[in-house]
Amino acid sequence: MRITQADLDKMPSRNRARLMNTLSGYKPANLIGSRSDDGISNLAIFNSVIHMGSRPPLLGLLFRPLTVRRDTYANIKANGYFTINAVNLPIYPQAHHTAAKFEAGESEFEETGLTERFIDDFPAPFVAESPIQIACRFESEYPIKENGTILMLGAIQFIEIKDSLLKEDGTLALDQEKLMATVGLEGYALPKIIDRLHYAEPGQKPSSIKDGS
Amino acid sequence: MRITQADLDKMPSRNRARLMNTLSGYKPANLIGSRSDDGISNLAIFNSVIHMGSRPPLLGLLFRPLTVRRDTYANIKANGYFTINAVNLPIYPQAHHTAAKFEAGESEFEETGLTERFIDDFPAPFVAESPIQIACRFESEYPIKENGTILMLGAIQFIEIKDSLLKEDGTLALDQEKLMATVGLEGYALPKIIDRLHYAEPGQKPSSIKDGS
Repeated sequence: MRITQADLDKMPSRNRARLMNTLSGYKPANLIGSRSDDGISNLAIFNSVIHMGSRPPLLGLLFRPLTVRRDTYANIKANGYFTINAVNLPIYPQAHHTAAKFEAGESEFEETGLTERFIDDFPAPFVAESPIQIACRFESEYPIKENGTILMLGAIQFIEIKDSLLKEDGTLALDQEKLMATVGLEGYALPKIIDRLHYAEPGQKPSSIKDGS
Repeated sequence: MRITQADLDKMPSRNRARLMNTLSGYKPANLIGSRSDDGISNLAIFNSVIHMGSRPPLLGLLFRPLTVRRDTYANIKANGYFTINAVNLPIYPQAHHTAAKFEAGESEFEETGLTERFIDDFPAPFVAESPIQIACRFESEYPIKENGTILMLGAIQFIEIKDSLLKEDGTLALDQEKLMATVGLEGYALPKIIDRLHYAEPGQKPSSIKDGS
């Protein structure tokens, strides 16, 4: 079945958004914690956290155009810091709920029942329930001229993880803590790691790492 | 368990790369098809395909720094077109194999056994086995100054999908065709869609869409 640009143009805009949002495949599910100058905490689900590089340790966040109020964006620009918290099976309904249009003065922590956590004097809230909590400092932003989205880069300050997640070789066993992936804007998937493959070499078929799964 | 910036600095570089590559969660698994001016096809696995926006329909690709030969990047810049092909369970070992350092004149299609497909006169090869095949035109690129990576944007020209994947509301049922997600650079996960939630509203807990799973 072929879908052309003309077909996309003709699709009802919700359907087109659903198609476009699932087309690139599974996405990570993360909650972004931030704080306003007035000390109001904000929490928002994002499926656009991107690994930008290991050296220096950088993560990216793609923001939709600033045509409506974007508390997370405004807070990070004002305060300079934010947190990234992985969404797992026990909390995905609450995580989804953070997408509701609460009033500016309302905290998504209170509204959804997720537990706000502060670590030392880091100026943005973490999600206590999350098995991977990442502290980031605003690094830079790249406005995308084609559609008004903004790619924001964050420099990792420290990471809090459940001990059992970290394997000896540095890998995080994401499925052990039932981390979720998202499908478009409304679907939630539970992945199972089924294989780990050795570094690919030209002349030989990829083979599994012994403790692969 | 806390991992500080100093801890990251001290980690063996492979372990640090593994940690950083799994930290943001599951990533999509896609094969990028391209063609050189000499007519040599190239195929490369990417876990950095990003949904950039629905209007216009744009996808992004994050390239690592151009410090070594990057055939995919060079081909797209020379030829202006590329394809994105979803990786599913039957082809993930071959997809992983495309990451091997083949010679510039070798085609990953021939080396891995994946089937090259051309559609009409579109000037880049598709992967015949893939249930989602996307034709893209180079749109623009954003050099990331912090680490030399490059965000490239592609404009969708047309999409070829297995009919059964497209639900009536526009969503693609990714798990039906056993689409894979990646974990870092070597892990492959099979997600199962367990829920679809209604649009979030302030006063009420998110509820499942009836044909959710």
